Amino acid sequence: MKKLDILTPIGLVLAFALVMFGISMGGTGIKPFIDMPSLAITLGGSFSAVLVTFSIADIKKIPKYFKLCTTSNNLYKMDLVDQFKEISKKIRKDGVLAIEEEVSQIEDEFLKKGLELVIDGVDTESIKEILETEIAEKEVLYSGGSKMFKVWGSYAPAFGMVGTLIGLIQMLTDMGSPEVIASGMSKALITTFYGALFSNAVLNPIGFNIEGKGEKEVVFMEMMICGISSIQNGESTRVIEEKLIAFLDDKERAKYYKREGNEKVADLDGA
Amino acid sequence: MKKLDILTPIGLVLAFALVMFGISMGGTGIKPFIDMPSLAITLGGSFSAVLVTFSIADIKKIPKYFKLCTTSNNLYKMDLVDQFKEISKKIRKDGVLAIEEEVSQIEDEFLKKGLELVIDGVDTESIKEILETEIAEKEVLYSGGSKMFKVWGSYAPAFGMVGTLIGLIQMLTDMGSPEVIASGMSKALITTFYGALFSNAVLNPIGFNIEGKGEKEVVFMEMMICGISSIQNGESTRVIEEKLIAFLDDKERAKYYKREGNEKVADLDGA
Amino acid sequence: MKKLDILTPIGLVLAFALVMFGISMGGTGIKPFIDMPSLAITLGGSFSAVLVTFSIADIKKIPKYFKLCTTSNNLYKMDLVDQFKEISKKIRKDGVLAIEEEVSQIEDEFLKKGLELVIDGVDTESIKEILETEIAEKEVLYSGGSKMFKVWGSYAPAFGMVGTLIGLIQMLTDMGSPEVIASGMSKALITTFYGALFSNAVLNPIGFNIEGKGEKEVVFMEMMICGISSIQNGESTRVIEEKLIAFLDDKERAKYYKREGNEKVADLDGA
Amino acid sequence: MKKLDILTPIGLVLAFALVMFGISMGGTGIKPFIDMPSLAITLGGSFSAVLVTFSIADIKKIPKYFKLCTTSNNLYKMDLVDQFKEISKKIRKDGVLAIEEEVSQIEDEFLKKGLELVIDGVDTESIKEILETEIAEKEVLYSGGSKMFKVWGSYAPAFGMVGTLIGLIQMLTDMGSPEVIASGMSKALITTFYGALFSNAVLNPIGFNIEGKGEKEVVFMEMMICGISSIQNGESTRVIEEKLIAFLDDKERAKYYKREGNEKVADLDGA
Amino acid sequence: MKKLDILTPIGLVLAFALVMFGISMGGTGIKPFIDMPSLAITLGGSFSAVLVTFSIADIKKIPKYFKLCTTSNNLYKMDLVDQFKEISKKIRKDGVLAIEEEVSQIEDEFLKKGLELVIDGVDTESIKEILETEIAEKEVLYSGGSKMFKVWGSYAPAFGMVGTLIGLIQMLTDMGSPEVIASGMSKALITTFYGALFSNAVLNPIGFNIEGKGEKEVVFMEMMICGISSIQNGESTRVIEEKLIAFLDDKERAKYYKREGNEKVADLDGA
Repeated sequence: MKKLDILTPIGLVLAFALVMFGISMGGTGIKPFIDMPSLAITLGGSFSAVLVTFSIADIKKIPKYFKLCTTSNNLYKMDLVDQFKEISKKIRKDGVLAIEEEVSQIEDEFLKKGLELVIDGVDTESIKEILETEIAEKEVLYSGGSKMFKVWGSYAPAFGMVGTLIGLIQMLTDMGSPEVIASGMSKALITTFYGALFSNAVLNPIGFNIEGKGEKEVVFMEMMICGISSIQNGESTRVIEEKLIAFLDDKERAKYYKREGNEKVADLDGA
Repeated sequence: MKKLDILTPIGLVLAFALVMFGISMGGTGIKPFIDMPSLAITLGGSFSAVLVTFSIADIKKIPKYFKLCTTSNNLYKMDLVDQFKEISKKIRKDGVLAIEEEVSQIEDEFLKKGLELVIDGVDTESIKEILETEIAEKEVLYSGGSKMFKVWGSYAPAFGMVGTLIGLIQMLTDMGSPEVIASGMSKALITTFYGALFSNAVLNPIGFNIEGKGEKEVVFMEMMICGISSIQNGESTRVIEEKLIAFLDDKERAKYYKREGNEKVADLDGA
Repeated sequence: MKKLDILTPIGLVLAFALVMFGISMGGTGIKPFIDMPSLAITLGGSFSAVLVTFSIADIKKIPKYFKLCTTSNNLYKMDLVDQFKEISKKIRKDGVLAIEEEVSQIEDEFLKKGLELVIDGVDTESIKEILETEIAEKEVLYSGGSKMFKVWGSYAPAFGMVGTLIGLIQMLTDMGSPEVIASGMSKALITTFYGALFSNAVLNPIGFNIEGKGEKEVVFMEMMICGISSIQNGESTRVIEEKLIAFLDDKERAKYYKREGNEKVADLDGA
Repeated sequence: MKKLDILTPIGLVLAFALVMFGISMGGTGIKPFIDMPSLAITLGGSFSAVLVTFSIADIKKIPKYFKLCTTSNNLYKMDLVDQFKEISKKIRKDGVLAIEEEVSQIEDEFLKKGLELVIDGVDTESIKEILETEIAEKEVLYSGGSKMFKVWGSYAPAFGMVGTLIGLIQMLTDMGSPEVIASGMSKALITTFYGALFSNAVLNPIGFNIEGKGEKEVVFMEMMICGISSIQNGESTRVIEEKLIAFLDDKERAKYYKREGNEKVADLDGA
Repeated sequence: MKKLDILTPIGLVLAFALVMFGISMGGTGIKPFIDMPSLAITLGGSFSAVLVTFSIADIKKIPKYFKLCTTSNNLYKMDLVDQFKEISKKIRKDGVLAIEEEVSQIEDEFLKKGLELVIDGVDTESIKEILETEIAEKEVLYSGGSKMFKVWGSYAPAFGMVGTLIGLIQMLTDMGSPEVIASGMSKALITTFYGALFSNAVLNPIGFNIEGKGEKEVVFMEMMICGISSIQNGESTRVIEEKLIAFLDDKERAKYYKREGNEKVADLDGA
């Protein structure tokens, strides 16, 4: 179900390429922009603050968070409409147990669990409670990832400033010729440069990326809950279809109606 | 239903004209303010961060977002009151099926769908759920567009600062005569200038513009839901009118009452 | 019902007088602080961004917004308690139709409409829906005005910075003697000065002013809804009084109880 | 019920003492830090903006706000538990009218009014509505005070910057020897110093102080509502006790249980 | 139940070690970075502002807050699922009183109290109210701690700036040779350095740390409420299990299902 979210690496590479290009326009080459101790203060220091901020369990999720921001789920809403329509028709014809086999082959864990509970005859309230708790749990995952990168993205420029202040204080304490001062000043600014760059080209974008994916995932899960509830309430295929179509955006809806075309009339008869 | 929102281009042109005017007051001409590499870092870099932030599906909506901010929907609330009053009267006289033809000619997809569901006899709860899901979907569209431009508007000055830091570091690394330093400093500041200008004259205003339009659209849709529910509940024409008038602002209301004038008394008799 | 809010002009005049006083303490006079092109960039530029941000309908409301922030409504809560007590007693004695004439003379449109609906026998739910929609509409007005000035207040310093950057870049491009540089720098700072001054002495305060008035207006309207609902539910005069008194603050309540004095006992007997 | 909140003056004096100490470490004495015109611009100017922001009614509450931040209410939750337990037992033994005299001696206006309404036999819904309106009114008071000081605390540094810009522009317009420049610069920075100091040592802390007290007061009032509702619903003394104990924090609870000790068993028998 | 949260000290030590490392790369040694008066202004001044901001009761909780951020609760969700499953089975077999002894041995105060109330036959509504009040009280504790450190973290850089302004004003008032100026400037910057460092390496991370722990604790308590309610409503062991599993994240769930393995089938039979 997961596929590579190609935009994330493209954007990251592009941002650094453009910065490189900007650097190459000056006459100094890349050398003055590479300084390991500055990197240690800015990235290392801000990551230390991240360690204080979060628990071990959260830190262990960092690989998972990276996976979240470099892949994207296939959230095909149209397929979901079709799936629910089919299930609804089957149930109306042969009863709720008729879908047992079909359900066992559903890939999505959330949808599968929901329909299994329907088949098992669990009451509507409990099903809703269970599925909404799962959504809340999913939101905790995504918002946790988003928060970690955003918080990191707020620490990075701060540690950049700390580094610059260290450089400035040292430079002012131990003044030499103007050239020496200028060179000290130049070094002092590198941590601010690192802080601004990592925060705005990497950390904040990744934080927002995970946030946005979480929001979409949640809407998709709410669409499933809507369908499952309708199925359990024994609503007509037509109403279920209308309820689910409401989750499509303009473009998807146009596509859906176009595909349906003449089919639609036939459908309504059978509903 | 869409018409050009003339204020958006006017405001954009005016802002740049005023900045040009400000530049022309100095003795240097426009030349020192045009620098392609600086533009690449500031606009290109911040757009790269936007690519990391959003998914392909979101990025593909950029043309749509531009359309949202340069056009405005005709949200004539008074016409809507009239429309609902007419429908209500017809239904009270000839039953719900009497409006079938009228409904089929309604241009607004949302209103049409809602009234069709009423005619089809779908239950109140389901209709409300369907229409509110559509509103939520509309809100996702507008808030998505608003967020994209606001986030871009926060990256732009940051990349402006990154560019300025690159310039400063290069200048300080490779110091020459004071004139050379001044010219380097001048160049370094251009990215900050670009970042501040694009963020505050273009990106943030467009972000707020889309947000504001979304809010108005949602109120208009809620007004429709209010009318549709009232129709389905079989409320009197008078009550429906009062409920919808409550959505008008002072000015619209004054206009409405003025137009009604003597009509009003007659209306009440027929309600 | 509206009266001049004398504090708004006083505060504005005072702020500018103090700034003038501060300027007069230096030896340069007012001249270096007046520069039309700088004003054009800062105020004109930020207003252009406001034009992009809002719709024509919003922009047309600017005169209304100015009226909102320079006048204040008479929201005499104690009078409202008295009014409702009287109405309640009348209804309990002579029935709901007995208040028809009294209601027709009420000045406040909102209260009048609410009580008319009660007299007309519209059901409680519908009345509440109508009146709450009106409150929401009122909130849209006030929050719209508040947002416009606050957004403007955030653009103004940004355009001030844009102006300062223009000045700096020009100065650095075309360096002359130190005096020339200082004078250019001085000019460059004027836009930042304008931006900070207008934002913090005019735009933000007006934005907060409108916001605060809206909040008070809404509480007053909610107090009316509370009274109207209680009347319709046929609650006792005593309970209505208690419900409305709960909206008074400590000072108003002390005043109210003092005035009531011995009256109170008599009231309770008649309730 | 009110007692002096000794921490507020201690904190204020300490902050200024530490700043004085910092100043005394330099060789210049206090003189360069005292400048009346700078104070006029920074404090006077920001207060002018406060006048524009708020209404006369709000401004008149400033003495009240000062009283709020220098005193603290005795919110003894444990005493409240005892009080309610006693009332509950009395009612269960002798009926609701038996507490009339006890209630008339309660000092807290809110609790007294609530219990009086219970004695008068007003229905649960109305009592809850009345008491919750009072809480809302209390929240308006505290949040109003908090907002005033926080808004002032945001204006103060802004006017500090305005003052500094005035100084800088004057200094750059009228350059003399380096010493003159330095002295002008020094003066220009004083307004920024005042703005930062007052905002962070006085205004913002007071704003947060009032906010925090409001939150505690509201929880205390909600605890009273909880008790009053339980009394009216005729719940058992044991359940009322459990409900109220839930409002205690760990420390208070430990203290409460320790005090109860063996009593507890006896209590349960009598419940 | 509490164990050391090792990440907090590790992060703190690491951040300071990296800053030390950064300092050691310059040629000046640690000496110019240690200045007691600067520390007094920055940390002492900001703590004074904290004293104004909070009440004595809040300040007394600082040791508790430190304990919160250096320890972490064992929130083993899987064990909780097992515990509830066992209790549910016992109740279904032998009635609610059969769990009395088991409950008396539960360590967690919250869970124990909840189940005791069930055994005592208190009604569902009251139990929910009591337990939710306890959660609210817990949230007050955590959010209070989080707010204290975050507010402190916002005062610290502000007092750092106040200190720097004092240094600058003194330096500019009393100018000597360039070396003297540089050294004064260097000293002036130390307070800003302290403010930025403490705020971003210590205070803000601790504030966020407490916030995050509070959120996890609350979810854990909500999971307990969910289980207790289900027990009281007499739901089947299967449904209780499903409801509680919904609180597990992906990893925990995988682990849980793996452990259950064949057990699961047997379980369902006995449910």
